[in-house]
Amino acid sequence: MKFVLENNDNQARAGYIITDHGKFQTPAFMPVGTQGTVKSITQKNLEEIGAEIILSNTYHLYLRPGIEILHQAGGLHRFMNWSHPILTDSGGYQVFSLSDLRKIEEEGVQFRSHLDGSLHTFTPESVVDIQRYIGSDIIMVLDECTPYPCEKEYAAQSNELTLRWADRCREHFRASNPLYGHSQALFGIVQGSIYPDIREHSAKVLTNMNFEGYAIGGLAVGEPAAQMYEMVEVCNEILPHEKPRYLMGVGTPENLLEAIERGVDMFDCVLPTRNGRNAQLFTRKGVINITNAQFKNDFTPFDDECECYTCKNFTRAYIRHLFMVKEILGLQLATHHNLYYYLWLMRNARRAIQEGKYAGWKQEQLSLLKQEKNIFH
Amino acid sequence: MKFVLENNDNQARAGYIITDHGKFQTPAFMPVGTQGTVKSITQKNLEEIGAEIILSNTYHLYLRPGIEILHQAGGLHRFMNWSHPILTDSGGYQVFSLSDLRKIEEEGVQFRSHLDGSLHTFTPESVVDIQRYIGSDIIMVLDECTPYPCEKEYAAQSNELTLRWADRCREHFRASNPLYGHSQALFGIVQGSIYPDIREHSAKVLTNMNFEGYAIGGLAVGEPAAQMYEMVEVCNEILPHEKPRYLMGVGTPENLLEAIERGVDMFDCVLPTRNGRNAQLFTRKGVINITNAQFKNDFTPFDDECECYTCKNFTRAYIRHLFMVKEILGLQLATHHNLYYYLWLMRNARRAIQEGKYAGWKQEQLSLLKQEKNIFH
Repeated sequence: MKFVLENNDNQARAGYIITDHGKFQTPAFMPVGTQGTVKSITQKNLEEIGAEIILSNTYHLYLRPGIEILHQAGGLHRFMNWSHPILTDSGGYQVFSLSDLRKIEEEGVQFRSHLDGSLHTFTPESVVDIQRYIGSDIIMVLDECTPYPCEKEYAAQSNELTLRWADRCREHFRASNPLYGHSQALFGIVQGSIYPDIREHSAKVLTNMNFEGYAIGGLAVGEPAAQMYEMVEVCNEILPHEKPRYLMGVGTPENLLEAIERGVDMFDCVLPTRNGRNAQLFTRKGVINITNAQFKNDFTPFDDECECYTCKNFTRAYIRHLFMVKEILGLQLATHHNLYYYLWLMRNARRAIQEGKYAGWKQEQLSLLKQEKNIFH
Repeated sequence: MKFVLENNDNQARAGYIITDHGKFQTPAFMPVGTQGTVKSITQKNLEEIGAEIILSNTYHLYLRPGIEILHQAGGLHRFMNWSHPILTDSGGYQVFSLSDLRKIEEEGVQFRSHLDGSLHTFTPESVVDIQRYIGSDIIMVLDECTPYPCEKEYAAQSNELTLRWADRCREHFRASNPLYGHSQALFGIVQGSIYPDIREHSAKVLTNMNFEGYAIGGLAVGEPAAQMYEMVEVCNEILPHEKPRYLMGVGTPENLLEAIERGVDMFDCVLPTRNGRNAQLFTRKGVINITNAQFKNDFTPFDDECECYTCKNFTRAYIRHLFMVKEILGLQLATHHNLYYYLWLMRNARRAIQEGKYAGWKQEQLSLLKQEKNIFH
């Protein structure tokens, strides 16, 4: 993996990352394909709207279809027929959010599957092995994602465990090899809840371990946005300039724009897909709920400046109808538009950085985003 | 509307129909778009797989989004952005299959919406009016679709009512005008359950009313296939050669091939879409249920001769995974393939007729269709 930084505009960065499955531009938004599919959109459409990298989930893929099937298929790229880069998270977050009866010990984390209650263990070593089988281009270390709020003592203690796990992941990663002829890169994850000194410590220790990239985890879990931005600043002051920075699970368009300004290069979030399936449409002017009665005879597109298939071909009235009668096409068209919008936002952020106009462009977008009755305000 | 018969091969017919929304070739399969969308496939993909006409439902569209919205949109073509021909059924079938407390009288049929219990009446005149608002290229008369089995006396009596309704539809159709600048054609519907003499009588009376096309209704409702084919023969002996014949709600690939041999030109059926969403995949070699364990590491396509997006890009193992984890993409890919297969079957039936080789080609297909453990055998 190679990260090339092309432009800086204050802290904001424009660049690209080269993997054996091709290049993706940064700032990058990674659509979430939890179970080896980005929900309700085809791989072809993902390519068409400009997705250059997607995220998938170790926890889910490990449970279904399982490592054996993925191995026989020749890895996730071939299994799902996605020839571009894939990043997988380590499964840590899902173990803490989805599974029952988890038990965290030095060795790793024991959990019961949310599907059938079966007992499993993830260790720093095993999640590296699983991600070797998956064959993702970028793999993540096992971490504990602390909840919000979180007592400082617990956050510090948990972070120390996360750091020891990161070291074990790195050791096991170095001692093992990719399975399918393409290389993989390992990213560390900064934790520390909302405590600047724990975040600093975490970022420093991980930087010394020399990962190929760094994620900032444990944010967007309920803390105020201002606190999230502060933590991003704290981390990015320490994380090495020449490595990519990935803010996990974030966020709204506003969150992305603020984080880019603070030097983040990569994002993933279920908002455009999940909220799309719940009738929430992202537009340049904010979020609308398409099931509102005001749209029943609104024969304009979601977003009249949008160039996506949905906006070029269908009206708010039609898509409202699809949602009211629970038609799958509604989910497809909403997902398509929302992802297109997120990817559009990243491309334009990148251009603004390249032109040295990021701060002004961001302000303009933030003003625009307040025009609709935005569900996030 | 203009029907051009190009070739005959014994009773089988190849031709095309020209409407103000363009041409469609016959024999034609019409994907079912009940609520103004063919479930889980985009209009663009429908065009790409070669759908030239779709069917939609008066009953559903009348209830939601309602006639007012459709009128404001400029008709269903514009509402759903489908620029090719649309046929709508009259709503009769849905009133009898979906609604509660229906009451059939000379004037029409009173029913309660399956959605909210609200009371409505369809008359021969009102279903023409509704279909004027929908703006479909081909509109159907109001009929009573008798159940199977059905006493002969009831079948005869019901058929007389259907014939009187057909006449009233025709009168009202002649006395009214299309709303959106394109012309509409009205088809009559032959009923008569499984009684040859009632079918004959129905076909004769309708033929004298001089419709632009004729549907054969009330079949594929539970009767043995042999009886369905016999009824088709009885009707087609009487229905005029120079008008299109449409076998409503039929059927399996085998049903279509047999009916084409007996002179049917048009079909609609939910099988490829509904069964696709239930993991049943139509292949040249019969139907497979993709959730079967045998497919979990089957890295071949559904149908290795199929040229559709699904078969060219994805394996049985991947699509099985999508169904096992209940991912929407499974529904999308299965629907895409099944419709492609049905449309492929029609195109190839047409070619075989044009080459005067229909009987042999049909036999070959029927043998092939028995190779998989076919759920329909």
